[in-house]
Amino acid sequence: MATPHISVTTSDDNASIDAALDSVIAEATSPHPEIVKREAPRFDVAQMQQHLDGDLADLKQEIRDLLVSDPIFQKDEYISHADFRDITYERTKVLAEHNLGAMDIPAEFGGRGAAKGPLALMEILSHYDMSLVIKQGVHFGLFGGAVYLLGTEKHHKAYLPGMVNLDYCACFAMTELGHGSNVRDLQTTATYDPATQEFVIHTPIESARKEYIGAAAQHATMSVVFAQAIVNGESHGVNCFIVPIRDEKMHPMPGVRIEDNGMKMGLNGVDNGRLWFDNVRIPRENMLDRYAHVSADGEYVTDITSESKRFFTMIGALVKGRFGVAISALGASKTALTVATRYANRRRQFGPDDKAEALLMEYGTHQTRLMPRIAKAYAIDFALKQMTEKSLNANAGESTREIETLAAAIKAYTTWYNTDAIQTARETCGGQGFLAVNRFADLKGDSDVYATFEGDNTVLMQLVAKGLLSEYGSQFNDNRLHAVMRMLTRQAGRELTEKNPVVTRMRSEAHLRDSDFHMNALSFREEVTLVETAKRFRREIKERKLPAFEAMTRVQGDMLDLGNAYIERVILEEFLDYIDGVEDENIAAMLRDLATLFALDSIKTNAAWYLERGYLSGAKYHALRRQFDKLCNELKWQGIHLVDAFGIPDAVLGAPIAI
Amino acid sequence: MATPHISVTTSDDNASIDAALDSVIAEATSPHPEIVKREAPRFDVAQMQQHLDGDLADLKQEIRDLLVSDPIFQKDEYISHADFRDITYERTKVLAEHNLGAMDIPAEFGGRGAAKGPLALMEILSHYDMSLVIKQGVHFGLFGGAVYLLGTEKHHKAYLPGMVNLDYCACFAMTELGHGSNVRDLQTTATYDPATQEFVIHTPIESARKEYIGAAAQHATMSVVFAQAIVNGESHGVNCFIVPIRDEKMHPMPGVRIEDNGMKMGLNGVDNGRLWFDNVRIPRENMLDRYAHVSADGEYVTDITSESKRFFTMIGALVKGRFGVAISALGASKTALTVATRYANRRRQFGPDDKAEALLMEYGTHQTRLMPRIAKAYAIDFALKQMTEKSLNANAGESTREIETLAAAIKAYTTWYNTDAIQTARETCGGQGFLAVNRFADLKGDSDVYATFEGDNTVLMQLVAKGLLSEYGSQFNDNRLHAVMRMLTRQAGRELTEKNPVVTRMRSEAHLRDSDFHMNALSFREEVTLVETAKRFRREIKERKLPAFEAMTRVQGDMLDLGNAYIERVILEEFLDYIDGVEDENIAAMLRDLATLFALDSIKTNAAWYLERGYLSGAKYHALRRQFDKLCNELKWQGIHLVDAFGIPDAVLGAPIAI
Repeated sequence: MATPHISVTTSDDNASIDAALDSVIAEATSPHPEIVKREAPRFDVAQMQQHLDGDLADLKQEIRDLLVSDPIFQKDEYISHADFRDITYERTKVLAEHNLGAMDIPAEFGGRGAAKGPLALMEILSHYDMSLVIKQGVHFGLFGGAVYLLGTEKHHKAYLPGMVNLDYCACFAMTELGHGSNVRDLQTTATYDPATQEFVIHTPIESARKEYIGAAAQHATMSVVFAQAIVNGESHGVNCFIVPIRDEKMHPMPGVRIEDNGMKMGLNGVDNGRLWFDNVRIPRENMLDRYAHVSADGEYVTDITSESKRFFTMIGALVKGRFGVAISALGASKTALTVATRYANRRRQFGPDDKAEALLMEYGTHQTRLMPRIAKAYAIDFALKQMTEKSLNANAGESTREIETLAAAIKAYTTWYNTDAIQTARETCGGQGFLAVNRFADLKGDSDVYATFEGDNTVLMQLVAKGLLSEYGSQFNDNRLHAVMRMLTRQAGRELTEKNPVVTRMRSEAHLRDSDFHMNALSFREEVTLVETAKRFRREIKERKLPAFEAMTRVQGDMLDLGNAYIERVILEEFLDYIDGVEDENIAAMLRDLATLFALDSIKTNAAWYLERGYLSGAKYHALRRQFDKLCNELKWQGIHLVDAFGIPDAVLGAPIAI
Repeated sequence: MATPHISVTTSDDNASIDAALDSVIAEATSPHPEIVKREAPRFDVAQMQQHLDGDLADLKQEIRDLLVSDPIFQKDEYISHADFRDITYERTKVLAEHNLGAMDIPAEFGGRGAAKGPLALMEILSHYDMSLVIKQGVHFGLFGGAVYLLGTEKHHKAYLPGMVNLDYCACFAMTELGHGSNVRDLQTTATYDPATQEFVIHTPIESARKEYIGAAAQHATMSVVFAQAIVNGESHGVNCFIVPIRDEKMHPMPGVRIEDNGMKMGLNGVDNGRLWFDNVRIPRENMLDRYAHVSADGEYVTDITSESKRFFTMIGALVKGRFGVAISALGASKTALTVATRYANRRRQFGPDDKAEALLMEYGTHQTRLMPRIAKAYAIDFALKQMTEKSLNANAGESTREIETLAAAIKAYTTWYNTDAIQTARETCGGQGFLAVNRFADLKGDSDVYATFEGDNTVLMQLVAKGLLSEYGSQFNDNRLHAVMRMLTRQAGRELTEKNPVVTRMRSEAHLRDSDFHMNALSFREEVTLVETAKRFRREIKERKLPAFEAMTRVQGDMLDLGNAYIERVILEEFLDYIDGVEDENIAAMLRDLATLFALDSIKTNAAWYLERGYLSGAKYHALRRQFDKLCNELKWQGIHLVDAFGIPDAVLGAPIAI
């Protein structure tokens, strides 16, 4: 009874059908109407892209050109899981052929000696496919970085040239099932056997299995393995060792067991797996010994005698990779915002009764969803440039702690922003946003893990807060309470200015768009949150007599707020600092508008905080909200030019709704 | 140079390895430690599940049993795209075999006459696989619902029995490329030809192609098609027609062109496709004619002469499906929260220096991430029960408008909540949350489209606001401005009570946990937002002389706030109303705590709004924040029992980290 009472015929000469409409069908080569550019750009788009590309412009263009020209980078939405893994590996080899993988490695080992090169690669690849970002990043960045930064000359000579050329594929076995965030308590052991001058790598318990290890499931023959070094029966904390995990026939080495992590939410071009070691022996010299070594007769020798300090020095050498994660997340956000903004400038729905339907970008909610996120992409981009520059210059200096705090904060902040930006951009594209070809599927699934890997964001923001708190002296160290008290005193003085009724009620457009007001507001939030958090800690411990750990679990929310307040102040400061150096007035004016939007967005998002503390009056907050809407509206037709300046080639973007 | 300077051996008798540890490995049958239940439940968990299951308890259990017992419901994470579509269809057939598909259809046509049956099915299937939710929902719910609600006896007899039995597979062709949200302006035409007594279904332009049509790409032979009825050269607006799209050999019918939508972010078990009609002829009786019919000689006959009213009556008959979408989203949220809460009660990381590592649930941020979302799941669940009951009783009555407003609001609210709940739950599970087996991948990808299909959430919330505004009289209808003024007057009186300094500063625990305070706060927000939005509209039109459409685009953000304020008040009201009828004091006490947490969460989220208007003082907001944290902390060990009461069988849940 599938088709009861029905007959179907067609008629080509049906008179009631307007022949003119048929020709419209025939002519419609694309279902997507043209992208409308209502306003000319207020700035030179090519010049803006130069600012964004910075001193990596040539390199970025080299990578874009490669992605567009080599057919291996063409995508197939129906590709199988197995084929996706294989082609991602093949694509990684193409990067190596063009010497784009380990650009930061010195030329003597085959690299380009371009310290920031990997950052350019991670950004541009993130427009294309994040599986490739991670596949190459694990091998060149994590494995290569560990050998280069934790190893010494013998390791460099032995491993780096093959690493750069991808003669072998390697992985980075740090995370364990039981310990992802708490790396210091890893349970894998590396026990030194002086009789044979070997280390015995061992997985003593199920929770010590290495977990989520990229390239372990299929392609890697080599790994760095982080394990507790046990020498002479004594533990010396986490150290790093080179361990072959497969032979040349790709069979697991004796004593090595490997399991596939299976399907993931995204990044399925990367073969993540689990590793177990059953008394696997490696020669003594496979220990990466920049910070400590073990002598032939079994003495653990190090210049950094504090185990804790040694651990953080070693880990500290690696955490700059977090800037790379932030940049990759930013690249993903730019991709999503480009697709959504272009769609918003061509898609029409509803509208005034008597006219053509309205472009999505004409809607107020569309403007307030997209424009602040575009502004934030710009703010983060320029701030990141300044930060990575500092990070490089700090290599020899003593400001390592500050750089680690920055890296942790910007990684957490940018990856959370990215999750939000992709979700928002996707929702503005309706049903089209759900189709894989339009990119949000991959962007969303792939980048999801950014919030938890390379340091869980919640844990990282706590680290940031802990760093800030201990810098001022805090309940973590009761002896230094006087520093907090100094802060409080300074604060009291500050409040006299900040909370002056005239200032808290000022609501002219000029004031609300004044960068001094913005910096003031963001700094005020950072400082007061710092002091309040320190005070609360003290109260929980001193007055409520809570153990330090339990006090921390209660103050944790405030610590996250502190981390956020800190990094938003830094971003605005760095962004404004960059703008100060921009010569072209049109570019500078546009960037100032974006900085204003970023700042207003931050103040608006934290309005309850400011209102609670009397920093904003209700009337001023009202005016600020309106100013925010007004600025979004003013910038709405510039959005399309601002995303064009991201410089993503159509062929890399791919999304039919955006090209 | 793959493995330079390295030799590997293993040794089973290595003395330095503790043999006891080896036995731990051998004994470790599961990598997951036990789920800790620190506190006994404060309520009878089975009884709580009965409350949640409500009068659909038997039916829900029947569905759970089927999912657990029939091997066709076993999952394969590596399943190919093609196989996933096929097995989803096979699973739909199994539902039909058990007469679980079209339960709301009267028994005379083969159904069960169980009006709320499909709601139970959508909730329980959402714990399992949302592709199946949609695959069965398109056929039984959308197609079946259209035939049943928009058709008449001849259609019921001809199509319903085959639909119930899944003798044929059908789809629901409403959305067009150019018109997803704006259904009234669909461009497909259905032109009546009196010479042959046929309608000619036609796609006159590319933007009129039917888009994202579930089951169109592969399995459907039949469709309902929404098109502009043209009779005697005159357009009569959108009507609905039955159109066969494939013959028995599964070839497209003459004049029908079909294209596959390809891969999507999720729901890849559903074969979405595009449809074009080239002058496809169907008999006159294929028009679903409950609200209008066309006589043999070409007269359009209807009791509802206003085209607009007819359109909304017809669409209104279908929008109750939005309750089903909300319930499905809620089912997905419960699944995610169950996985995350169980993991938080077994996973340890960091902790006090001298003791075992802490359970994740001991962390403050974990408590404030999970507990309010569990509370919201309960609040929405009980509110939805009350709403769907009203919706059924309103079938014959005149409160249709109110029901439509409710359905639109709860659909948008719940699906946005679901996106947030899944994301949050996933982030609390670290790397495990990224593995497909642990369910977040599917939950997140599949349910993503819920925010845009069956009415884009932004558009729906505007509809809600429009309904509320026009109910009171507004700038949409200037003559009724007096109604707004009445509201304002009422408001002024209210403010005297609400903003009394003693009340705005009251911050005892008893007051902050008092449901009168909560209802008062949520009602205040709804009413004031309504009045303020109406006033702003008036200002934009009367004072700033903006055209109505442009005024709307500016006030759109306020309209979304209004929709949210309205539905949160309704949810709290309905939840509290339900609690009033609960006899068991332990159950009632727990539900009251959850209602309190829901309310505090709402007030806290909108704190800036309350502070701006002086409804909360800064000090009271501070106390409220602390009360919120405190309640989350108090409930932290009840979370595991609260998710157990969701009653999701382990075999359906699947996630290894949660079973």
